[in-house]
This record gives sequence, structure tokens and C-alpha cells, in this order.
Amino acid sequence: MAEINRQWCVADVAGGEGMALSREQFAYREAEIPTLQEGEVLIRNVYFSCDPMNHAWVKGLGERFSAIPIGSPMRGGVAGRVVASRHPDFKEGEAVTGFLEWADYVASGSLDLTGTPLQRIPEGFPLASGLATLGMTGLCAYFGVADIGKPKLGDTMVVSGAAGAIGTVAGQLGRIAGARVIGIAGGPEKCALLTRELGFAATIDYKKEDVASRLQALCPNGIDVFFDNVGGAILDSALANMARGGRIVICGGISGYNAPAAGLHNHLMLAIQGCTMAGFFYFDRVGRFGEGVARLATWLKAGQIKEILTVAEGIDSVPDAALGQFAGSNIGKQLVKIADDPME
Amino acid sequence: MAEINRQWCVADVAGGEGMALSREQFAYREAEIPTLQEGEVLIRNVYFSCDPMNHAWVKGLGERFSAIPIGSPMRGGVAGRVVASRHPDFKEGEAVTGFLEWADYVASGSLDLTGTPLQRIPEGFPLASGLATLGMTGLCAYFGVADIGKPKLGDTMVVSGAAGAIGTVAGQLGRIAGARVIGIAGGPEKCALLTRELGFAATIDYKKEDVASRLQALCPNGIDVFFDNVGGAILDSALANMARGGRIVICGGISGYNAPAAGLHNHLMLAIQGCTMAGFFYFDRVGRFGEGVARLATWLKAGQIKEILTVAEGIDSVPDAALGQFAGSNIGKQLVKIADDPME
Repeated sequence: MAEINRQWCVADVAGGEGMALSREQFAYREAEIPTLQEGEVLIRNVYFSCDPMNHAWVKGLGERFSAIPIGSPMRGGVAGRVVASRHPDFKEGEAVTGFLEWADYVASGSLDLTGTPLQRIPEGFPLASGLATLGMTGLCAYFGVADIGKPKLGDTMVVSGAAGAIGTVAGQLGRIAGARVIGIAGGPEKCALLTRELGFAATIDYKKEDVASRLQALCPNGIDVFFDNVGGAILDSALANMARGGRIVICGGISGYNAPAAGLHNHLMLAIQGCTMAGFFYFDRVGRFGEGVARLATWLKAGQIKEILTVAEGIDSVPDAALGQFAGSNIGKQLVKIADDPME
Repeated sequence: MAEINRQWCVADVAGGEGMALSREQFAYREAEIPTLQEGEVLIRNVYFSCDPMNHAWVKGLGERFSAIPIGSPMRGGVAGRVVASRHPDFKEGEAVTGFLEWADYVASGSLDLTGTPLQRIPEGFPLASGLATLGMTGLCAYFGVADIGKPKLGDTMVVSGAAGAIGTVAGQLGRIAGARVIGIAGGPEKCALLTRELGFAATIDYKKEDVASRLQALCPNGIDVFFDNVGGAILDSALANMARGGRIVICGGISGYNAPAAGLHNHLMLAIQGCTMAGFFYFDRVGRFGEGVARLATWLKAGQIKEILTVAEGIDSVPDAALGQFAGSNIGKQLVKIADDPME
């Protein structure tokens, strides 16, 4: 066990306008390893998950994410090993994930900092999968696709932010459901990955192609399912190209996290085409995490879902990795590996 | 039977920018009464229904509304009496509605100009009800509320365009379902009608009150159901005030029919609050018209729905009545009465 407990804390520096923290708001600290209380487990974090939510959490976001006090460790999804336990339900060596502090070591009860039960990572999968396909990322894709998008055989499904963490999983779930899946992503490298590795039928490179006219060309019968991680002008173009009875999953809106996104002008297509646009609150579905993880694990094991990760090495890389997602620097799930898995 | 067949036709004049026709595009003509062919009925129109759709139809709108040729009669919802029949399913004296020409007399097969079966007006109700509560107006309210909004006991439901044709019915349906209904309308006369006559719990006069702050004050626990006839800034304010799991019915968007409406910026609330925003295509539900009309007729007869009409008298008033709806001049359903009911 390391002698010190490295952590990234909220610096006493004013934040900027958008959701993303500024580089100066990340304060590196070293603290003591927490002393375990009765009913707690000590977790050795191995991976941090980089999500827009980490940034929003600093200011606070709804009842699950009260603002993190200045000087306290930042928070986010982590995957790690139980290295000591004073809780009857957990034993040493178990692989767990939860929303916890960005530190080497955290002491937690059976509920994480959002009040959600710590989740066990299914056996036979690496810890990283517990934050990617088998964690919030995969589950957001699964609930969005299964509950709202509902692609069926022969449907045309379009995914924005398709090369991102949730997009790569959502698109593959559409393909598994028998849809023809089109991905919108930024740059040739990301687009090539989608068609060559993940079974997307076609892609639109929004950095060099006109999304609206390409959607029209690629979806002559309209879009049956639009899975949106972006918002703004891309969502508005999709609205204009929906098929009768189409479904739009509102999962994220990265185009608007750091600057005001373009407003939507085509929402009346929901009436003209009889479409549904909906989102879901992840934590409302805690009772169905088991269902989702079991299905995702089956597809991941069978190779029907390929897990795409961008892993930054070392705790020093936290600020760059956490900020990079707003510039689209990651492909698939962005993680930071801060230590080796003590069980490997 | 009149000797001439008065009608309003599409003039050979360029239209303006928005959806509404200009006054100059209405051309009054007199023609002969059509000769009845085998399989047709001759209908004596009594009421024309004024809807934004009438205007859009001139340019064409989707597959059901191919553009009306210049010089041909305008089209819209009409209610009238069968005065002669060469169709086995219809007999003289029956009260019918359909999407037909704006003329004294029309000859029609059993399908109207949208390909939809002519509808019989239930016995015991005036012809006007066949275009208001028991026609497209009431059915749009019914399908939107029953299928998408789904208000339940104790819900807070907000209706925009609440004093309009569909809004007055939608709000009363919410009240019947046990919701606390708040109406957004323009001016004290409309607001007073909603609370005094129709059982709305409260109103917001968008012409003199700040809708966003009033919504917040009137809906401290958020909006469970938002029934939208307006779009733009009002819809955006509602999005910002939705309750967890709320439903938004996109029925119309009159704020954007003649000028670009404000873009929507709060759509991510659908994800944050787990809400659904959806519309429906009226003609997809032809098979359920009977269900809707039967229920609406029961509530109308029992006085649980009060029918609010603005009736312009005489065929000369067609252009003013048709254009007035874009300025909010009507309360409830705007009709033009062009003749007396020959059966009354």
C-alpha cells in the first residue's frame, strides 16, 4: 500500500463560463490514507472515468450532485479493488465501481457519493470495463437504445458523437438490433474506426461534411432512431430528417456544455412526423442496472460489442484527460489509469 | 338549393414569407353546383373550420396535402348536410364532416381530399360540434392528452394557446383527468374565460406577464404535463420547469408559423429530468376516431367539456376569419357559418 494518498482537488480559483473546469481549477494534493470505520470498505482506485458530469459536479447538479467544497477531492466514476473491508457485504479483492473521490484510496459505505449502491464488476472482465461497457457508459447506451430508441430490424439509426464513450456502444447496440447504423463523428480516424471495427454502415464527418445534406442522402426514408450526444445544429438537422414515428434519444449535448449551442428550430417535426424525443435520468434505473450489465456483458464477451478505450497513464494526466473530452480528443471511453490493479 | 356555388379560391398572387396566406391570395368565385357522379354525395356546407393547415395546404404539406392549384377552391375542414346521394352508405339529411373545398356545395366520394373517410357527426349535436369538440380539434386534444400527456390525479398540467381551439379542449380534458390545469393565453378576456368557465386553476397572460417566472411560481414542483400549441420561447420556458418524468405534447407551434420562432435551448432538460416530448400525426389515428368522438361526445353532453366557438357569419367573412387566428383574434374554435343548416 502506498504511503500517501494522491488526489485531485477543487482549487480556490474562479471557474470559467462553460461547464468544463479550467486547468487552474485542478489542485493536486497528497493526503493520508483514510482510516476505515465500521461499515466501510477501503478501495484502491485503479481507473478514473472522465465524463462531463465530473465538471458539473464541482458546481453542483441536482439533488444527487451537491457542489464539491473548495479544497475537497473532485468526484467521478472510479473502478478499483476493495483492499480492506469492515462491511459485511464486501470482501477484500472484490472489483467495484462507484461515484467516489479522485484519489488513490477512498473509504466508502455501501452507497457511493450519489447515494447509489457500489456496483460489482462482473468476474472475468477487466476493471476498465466496469467504467466503460459495463458501467454508466454502457448502461446509458443500453437504456437509451432499449427504452427510447427501440431500433428494430431494418431501421435506420443515426448516432451523434458516435466515436465517443456512449456513442460507440449505442451504435453497436443498434447494429445488434438489426438496424443500419450511421455515425456522426469528427475526423477521418474516428469515422474509419466506426465502419471498420464497429459495424457502422456509414459515417458523416461533421468537421468537413454538411450534416443536413448528408443525412438526407444517407437516410432517403428518414431516420427511425436518432441517438443524440451532441445537441445544437446536429440535433436540429436530425429533427428535419426524421421518419414517421421516429424516436430521438436525448443522452447528452456536448455542443452546448462550454458555449451556447444553436437553438432548435425543427421541433414541430415531432408533430408532423409523429415522433418522440425523450431522455432518461440514469439514477432512476438503479433497479435495472443488473439487467443491463448482464446483457452488455454477454454481448461484450461474444465480441458483438467491441470496447473502445482511450487510457491516459498516471495520475498526473488527470487534468488533460478530463479537459480533452470537450475538444473531442478521446475515441471511445476516456479513462485515466492511476495505478496497477493489485489483483493482476 | 342556391343557384350558384360560392367559393374561395387560390388567387394568382405570390404569397408572403410565413405560413399564413395574404389577403390578396383569397379569390372569391361563383361556379356551378357540381353534377353528382355515381358513388358520390353532394354536401351543402354549413361551416368552414379555420385552421393553420388551410393555409399550409395552398403550398402543399406532406403526402396528404398536395398543393392546391391556382384558381382552384381552397380546402379545409367543413361540416354540412348530404343533400343528394349516389353512394350506398350515405343518405340525404346526414350530417358529415371532412376535408373538402371551401364552397357552398361539394361532391365527394366516401373519402375526402386527404383520403380520409367522411365522418358522420353524432346525432343530437349541432353541426359546429363536428368541427370543434367532435372533430379534428377535439380529437387532437384527446389524442395528445390521452396518448402522450397522460395527466393523472394531482398532476400539474400547463396548456399554451390555452384559449384556442385545441387548448380549450385539452385543458378541460386535463381537468377531467384530475390534474391542476394552468393556461397560458393572451389578454385578460381569454384568461378570465379559462378560470371562470372552463375550470382552469390559474392562468398566465403572456402579453403582460413573464412566462418563465410565473411558471416557476405556479408550478413549484414542476410541470408534469405541458400541452404545447405555441412553440418558441414559451415552450423553452416550459422545458426549464419540467418535473421528473414529465410529458410534453407537441401539438402546434403558432409562434413560428409566420415568423421564425425563438430556438429551443433547454432540450437537455429531457435528459436531466427524464422527460418525453412527442407529437402525433393525426391521420395515423383514423382507426381511433370513433373511440375519441364517443368519449368527447359523452363529456360534451354531460357539460364536463364546454364548447367555445367564435363564429364569423357569412361567406364574405372567410378571409378575415382565416387570417385572424394568426393574430389570436379567436377564442376557442374559429368557424365561418356560410349558410343555415337545411335540416334545422
